[in-house]
Parts: sequence; C-alpha cells; structure tokens
Amino acid sequence: MSVWPMRDQTAIVGIGETEYTKWGQTRRSEFQLACEAILKAIEDAGLNVKDIDGLCSYAGDRNEPSLLATALGIPQLRFSNMLWGGGGGGGSGAVHNACMAVFSGSANHVVAFRALAQGQFGRFGQSRTGQKVSGGQAYGAPFGLMTPAQRFALQTRRHMHLYGTTSRQLGAVAVACRKHAQHNPRAIMYGRPMTLEDHQNSRMIVDPFRLYDCCLESDGAAAAVITSAERAKNCKQRPVYIMGVSQGTGFQQGSFADKSKFDTANFEEVAKDLYERAGVTPRDIDVAQIYENFTGMVIMSIENHGFCKKGEGGPFVEGGRIEWPDGELPINTSGGNLSEAYTHGFELVTEAVRQMRGTSTCQVKDAEICLVASGPGVTPVSDMILRR
Amino acid sequence: MSVWPMRDQTAIVGIGETEYTKWGQTRRSEFQLACEAILKAIEDAGLNVKDIDGLCSYAGDRNEPSLLATALGIPQLRFSNMLWGGGGGGGSGAVHNACMAVFSGSANHVVAFRALAQGQFGRFGQSRTGQKVSGGQAYGAPFGLMTPAQRFALQTRRHMHLYGTTSRQLGAVAVACRKHAQHNPRAIMYGRPMTLEDHQNSRMIVDPFRLYDCCLESDGAAAAVITSAERAKNCKQRPVYIMGVSQGTGFQQGSFADKSKFDTANFEEVAKDLYERAGVTPRDIDVAQIYENFTGMVIMSIENHGFCKKGEGGPFVEGGRIEWPDGELPINTSGGNLSEAYTHGFELVTEAVRQMRGTSTCQVKDAEICLVASGPGVTPVSDMILRR
Repeated sequence: MSVWPMRDQTAIVGIGETEYTKWGQTRRSEFQLACEAILKAIEDAGLNVKDIDGLCSYAGDRNEPSLLATALGIPQLRFSNMLWGGGGGGGSGAVHNACMAVFSGSANHVVAFRALAQGQFGRFGQSRTGQKVSGGQAYGAPFGLMTPAQRFALQTRRHMHLYGTTSRQLGAVAVACRKHAQHNPRAIMYGRPMTLEDHQNSRMIVDPFRLYDCCLESDGAAAAVITSAERAKNCKQRPVYIMGVSQGTGFQQGSFADKSKFDTANFEEVAKDLYERAGVTPRDIDVAQIYENFTGMVIMSIENHGFCKKGEGGPFVEGGRIEWPDGELPINTSGGNLSEAYTHGFELVTEAVRQMRGTSTCQVKDAEICLVASGPGVTPVSDMILRR
Repeated sequence: MSVWPMRDQTAIVGIGETEYTKWGQTRRSEFQLACEAILKAIEDAGLNVKDIDGLCSYAGDRNEPSLLATALGIPQLRFSNMLWGGGGGGGSGAVHNACMAVFSGSANHVVAFRALAQGQFGRFGQSRTGQKVSGGQAYGAPFGLMTPAQRFALQTRRHMHLYGTTSRQLGAVAVACRKHAQHNPRAIMYGRPMTLEDHQNSRMIVDPFRLYDCCLESDGAAAAVITSAERAKNCKQRPVYIMGVSQGTGFQQGSFADKSKFDTANFEEVAKDLYERAGVTPRDIDVAQIYENFTGMVIMSIENHGFCKKGEGGPFVEGGRIEWPDGELPINTSGGNLSEAYTHGFELVTEAVRQMRGTSTCQVKDAEICLVASGPGVTPVSDMILRR
C-alpha cells in the first residue's frame, strides 16, 4: 500500500475544556459549555476566533453550528460536520473529519468538540417506560436491551465465558483510571482513591458491571483545534501531529446476526487501517487513551488494537501493566471516562495531546506516540495515532 | 489565491433514485427507500456494493450507517458522515464531505444520499400544539414562526418590500419548474401542467406563499456515488467532475439580530468560495439546479450566485429566462423540489449529473458546466459546480 496522503499533514494545535462537574451540577447550559471549551482551545492555540472556519462534533451533539458560530463571532463557517451514527465512537472520528476539511483546502482551522450536559436532558444510563426505540435499538429492545450498560454487559459476559475473563480483571481497568485521576485536579474523582476491593464491593448495575465498571455521568465539554502541519508551525503550542486516523465499521457490525461480534469492541478493521495509515505497529505506542463506557470494552479494545492476542486482554490489564508510571502501556492517564469526566470520550483526545506535549499530570516519560481509541460499539468507531 | 487542491480531483460516477410518490403513498419504509436509491446508484456506476466504503447524508437523515451497511452488504465502512445543522442546505455539502473522504485517501467510493418518507414521520410543513422547539427555532417560535413556510415567507416579504418583487415573479419560478416536469416521467407533477394564472389562483398558505410556491411533500430517495477522478475513468458512466464545492455560513447567519440577513438566501460567502475554487464565473454556468423549498428563495439564490444584481432577481426570472429550452439560464430541469419530488434537494444533484451526461429529459444543448445550489437558510448551505 502506498503512503496515506494525510500522514503527518495535519496537527492539533490547541485544546480546551470546561470544568467537569457531576451530573446535573453545572449552572451553565450545554451551549455555554460548548462555547467555553471551544474558546479555551482557540486561546490555547494562540489563535483568534476569527481564524476559525470549521466546527465538527459527533454523537448527535445538541448544539447547532450556525448558533455556535454566531455566538462565538466566527465570521464564516466553511465546514460543519457530524460523525454519523456513532456514540462515543466519534471522538477520533470528529478529528478525522476536521483533518479532511483542512487537508482538502476546504477550511483552515477547524474545532472538533463534544459538549454534554446530561443533567439537562436525561441520562444515557436509564431507560424509560414508553421510551421510543428506533433503528438498531429496535433489535435489542424486545429482549430488554434498553441501555448501553445492558448491551455491553452482554458482550462482556460473552468474553468472560469464552476466555475466562474475571470481574477482578474488569476492576483492574477501573483501578488504573482512578489511580491516574488522583494526580489530575480536573478529574471528578480527584481526591477519591479506590482499591480493587472497593470495586468488588460496589453494587451491581447490570451483571457483570458493578458501579465502578461504568463511566461517570457528568457535565462538561472538551475541544481541540486542527489545522495543517504547515500552519501549525506558526501556532503558540508545539504541534501534535496526526500520523493516522480512521473510522468506520466492519462487516455486519450493526447486526446481532453474527455471534463473532459479541466478544470484540469492533475495532478490527478500523485498527488495521489505522496502523497502515500511520505506518507504525502496536509496539510503537508509548501511551494510549482507550474509551471506557464500561471496563469490559477496554479489555476488548486492547485486544483489537493488537497489544495482546484475542482473549488475553484480561490478564494483560492486571499487574499494573496499564498503570502510570511503571506499566508498559499506561492508559487513560487523566482518569478518562471512568474517573476524569464523561464528555463522550473527547477528554481522551485532549489528554492524548497533553501526553504528546509533555504536560500530562501522569506524563509518560519520553512518550512520542499516543493512541486514542474512541468507542466500542455496534455503531461506527474511530481511532487515531498522534506524535509529538 | 492558489488553485484549490480538490478542483477536478473527484467525480460523480453513479446516480440512483426510487420512484417518487406523493406524501404517505409509498409502501416501503424510509430505510428501504434509502437502500434502493443507493443500490441503483452503485449499479449505474458499474460498481459492486463491495466497492463502497463510505456513506454520507444530511439534514438528520433517520437511517443509521451501520444498519445500512449491514443490509446492503458493505464489507467495511471507512467514512460515515452527516452534514451538521443543515436542512435542505446539505445536498451539495454531503457530496463535498464525500469528496474530502476520497481526496484524503480515507475512503474509495462514497455514496451520498437522502431518503425521505415524510408520510411515515410527520410533515415538515406543519407545526403541532405542544411541539418542542430548540436551538435556533427558539428565537422564532414565540413570534409564531413555527414552520419553514412561515420563516421564509418573512424573508420573501422583505424582498418584495425592498425591491418590488411580485407574486407573479414568484409564480414564474413555479411555472418554469412545472413546465420542465412535463418532460420528466419520474416527476410527481408529470402530466399536470400549470399556468401562471393557476399559480395566482392557488390558495394562500403563508402570505406571500400560495400553494404552488411551496415544495412538494413526497416520499422517495436519491443517491450519488463519488470517487477519485482517477478511479472514475474505470467506471461505466462518463465521469462528471466536481470543479468546486463549498458549504457553510456567513457571519451571524444563524441570527435574527441582523436585518441585512432578511433579503438573502445566505449564499454570499459560500458562493464566493465556490467560484474561486472552481475557477469559473456565473457567466460560465450553462444550467443550474437551485433549491426551492419556496419560490422566493430561488430569486434570492439567483442573486446570491451573481446571475443578476441584488434586488433584480424578480425581473430576472420572468420572460422565460429560466425555462428550457430557450432561456439563458434554465433551472431545475427535472422539475425540482416544486414539481419532480422533494428529496430535500438531492434530486437536484442527480439531475445536475444527468445534464452533464447529456441525458436530462430537458437537456440543455451543449451544456458543459452546471451549478447546484443547495438550500437557503439560517443553517449552513452548500453549493457545487460540476462539469462534463
């Protein structure tokens, strides 16, 4: 395969985020949260809002680009785009879409972001009597699969059945994230350490997921500015280059027809594209941010990305292997969705940028290459590889 | 300005559409309509569904890409994308997004489409008691601006006030579209000719819009396959090259704060980008497909695209100037949203391709360059220039 045309041609030059607060505790609207994160990212890049001409998001962000552009004072919007059909699978994908706009000369500086104030709109984690289901949900709802936890519990239970993955191994993911959050004052779980025994004693939500297997429910927003590698040279921060980025689905990913889809985070094909585009292998990855709606999916995502063989993800996450500072693959060094905040995984993108700048609160020494894996799911997923 | 990198680098190689039927009369689901239009476009291109690796749409198309990919048998999806925040403003923009995916090496063959079975989900044209409004709608709803017709009537009335535009001039747009539909057996209004007097005698919907100033309410879907100019050479049909394509909004387009936004279809900045990217001027355009949710917006769109001066759009559309075969700028040669079908304007994209292939039922002689203007609106709009 020839070299991917976009390799190293675009860069993230600014990041921003709001204060992260527990579900329902922010006093600001989701729209205000979006504006604040976007403005902070622009400021971080040393740019003016007048330089921005693109906005993109994912997972059906409730804001409207015209209103954001008007409120922010963006003179002209040349690109406004939504990754389609993804939930948390869209963080890297939104960055991907921004890269394409920049690379094609269709926009100069694009902000990718996600704003989420679940407290104002209802909880992902709950189903309601009389709830309307549509599309893919319609296949699961008659069997009681109404919430994300129910759906992913089914997959995690199958992984446990096939490979002997244990609840303590799920817990190891939660413990690593919580440990990292203890160094990060932005994290909602900062100052609230957790042991594996705490995890084991936490209440069952949907078997096999206990409370601490589930991502936070929080309010906040995070954003990143993407531009060309050439323009990046003139920005305030050291550019973080996008080596590779990919999005999508494999065959019948959206189907319950194929039981081989039940023990995977569905990154097989997308990860293969990713490594080919970036021109690196799993061995080159120094640090990773791996989307965790639920702990079990991290284990499968680690397998999908080639850090270990299929079925070996459980043992892989044990023994501190995914913990900073000494693990061989530190993951979610800000605390991630489980312990920093749940911005639908965009906080993993901003943390990846910090790692490549050398400014994380759990900075991996001499880290040069970072993986971001966005989302497991039956909907499209996405991932990317950044370098300093 | 240097040459736009994407000029002539991508092409539309296949088009497809379902049967178009009146609101509520299709026996198929919106999902089936989408699949049928997509499969027809793939067949038209001489490709196999296994060649397709991207899907994009706009205006919140209700289908889900994973389910479409599964149903169609697409082996791997590498791009799934939704123009964000547009209504009918997204037809050319969806093609734009597909072009970016192809040009950046992120996908090989992308299908852009729109499926719309309003009969199964409620009508755009009606508001309901207790209807929830959000975002930009919230600014107009307290003043009774609930439906698209109400909103655009306000703009059209202002154009009439400022420039003396008349109801008969609005009617000239409707008459031209209906005339073209008499040659097009696909058109819902095929076999139902209309005179200017019929227009004047039709009932008032929202002053100044009479029934025949409003787009159809219909069920159907349309699709187009986009690939690189290089791959296009190996496809079955003569490629139609995308010279330029742009999307977006100008300053405060999403706002009611600026009254200068009330007599325009909001294409000023987007059209400027478009002509620069394509390297042509309005004089080079042989035929145009101009989105008509309502006749008044066509007049403003014609002004925005530089075919006449601001305020002169009313006289411009008179005297058969926009009618095939003798007009100097034939528009909407299939009948368009007003008389062929309302697929949210994607039928204008497929008609533009036919004009460039030389296969329209109102074929403009020796036409080499075609403009597509997608949408007026407070949300992002988009437009493109195709060449044979």
